[in-house]
Amino acid sequence: MKDRLQKQMDFIVEIDKVKKIMRQTYLADASRKENDAEHSWHLALMAVLLKEYSNEDVDLSKVIPMVLIHDLVEIDAGDTYAYSGEDPEETEARERKAALRIFGMLPEDQGQWLRSLWEEFEAYETPEAKFARTLDNCQPLLLNDASDGKSWKEHGVHKSQIYKRNQHTGEGSREIWEYMQKLIDRHIQLGHVTDD
Amino acid sequence: MKDRLQKQMDFIVEIDKVKKIMRQTYLADASRKENDAEHSWHLALMAVLLKEYSNEDVDLSKVIPMVLIHDLVEIDAGDTYAYSGEDPEETEARERKAALRIFGMLPEDQGQWLRSLWEEFEAYETPEAKFARTLDNCQPLLLNDASDGKSWKEHGVHKSQIYKRNQHTGEGSREIWEYMQKLIDRHIQLGHVTDD
Repeated sequence: MKDRLQKQMDFIVEIDKVKKIMRQTYLADASRKENDAEHSWHLALMAVLLKEYSNEDVDLSKVIPMVLIHDLVEIDAGDTYAYSGEDPEETEARERKAALRIFGMLPEDQGQWLRSLWEEFEAYETPEAKFARTLDNCQPLLLNDASDGKSWKEHGVHKSQIYKRNQHTGEGSREIWEYMQKLIDRHIQLGHVTDD
Repeated sequence: MKDRLQKQMDFIVEIDKVKKIMRQTYLADASRKENDAEHSWHLALMAVLLKEYSNEDVDLSKVIPMVLIHDLVEIDAGDTYAYSGEDPEETEARERKAALRIFGMLPEDQGQWLRSLWEEFEAYETPEAKFARTLDNCQPLLLNDASDGKSWKEHGVHKSQIYKRNQHTGEGSREIWEYMQKLIDRHIQLGHVTDD
């Protein structure tokens, strides 16, 4: 039996792998794509700074671990691009299996807690999950804006795709989603996103 | 006058730059060095998981923002390697100026709060700062261990350098520091760190 601290340290080293999982979004300076660890760091700090815009009062001691771990399943399951068209049920099955293995490395209490936070994030029902998803959906919009719409242009993204992807984004924060709608409009004007 | 939300969004995009600031530590798989954003993400999750080993009770609602922002000054001041030999006062002056500009982008209340958390981290006096510094000092040890001592070998690091750098690490957590001392001993045995 490994002791508690050893399990925690093994988990901490294991999750280093998310630093190699690349997303489709470019960094603000457009020099390269960002990875899951960088993205999660960004979300955690956004949670701290933008909490005041959450529609409902949220507990940061849940939101922050939630955003820090929300992409860990991709260590086994890989990143699925927002507009990939993959069957969501297949993605979900792969991710659920990954959650069992990865969070299962931790001592029982911590593993169950983080897995339940991940499930809460996926279920999209609680105020914390809704706020976390708003951040998760909006951070790439900020980077796409800063990088002159690079990822949108590469994928030939249409307005309807962005709006479908963000149909629930306003549920976490109306104010942040209003800001983002203006941002998207600018990129439609610029021709980086196709109006349809 | 920019409005509050615009200032916050501008700050969130500005700090994307830490994803480009490279550290001397290699990822666990030794494939490349890690950057400040990835490192800070790792520390935040370590804070969540390892809080129980802090010598003194710590408030995670301070520790987490502290580790998330502790390297932001390097956007202007650059990363200073632990064993670089640079005059600490020069490093400090550069970093202090950087903190004024970067945190100054935020609305006054949030900018002052984050700057004070950064100063608290630097001063190394409160339980939260001591615990955060323990994590900041130990995370590269875990990665050096996983990457077969790659960064230590490249820099020809001696045991006395690691121990000098870590003279206060046990003040945040005796238990974590004991774990790390055994880890360092193994790499002395393996010849990755020079005994002196």
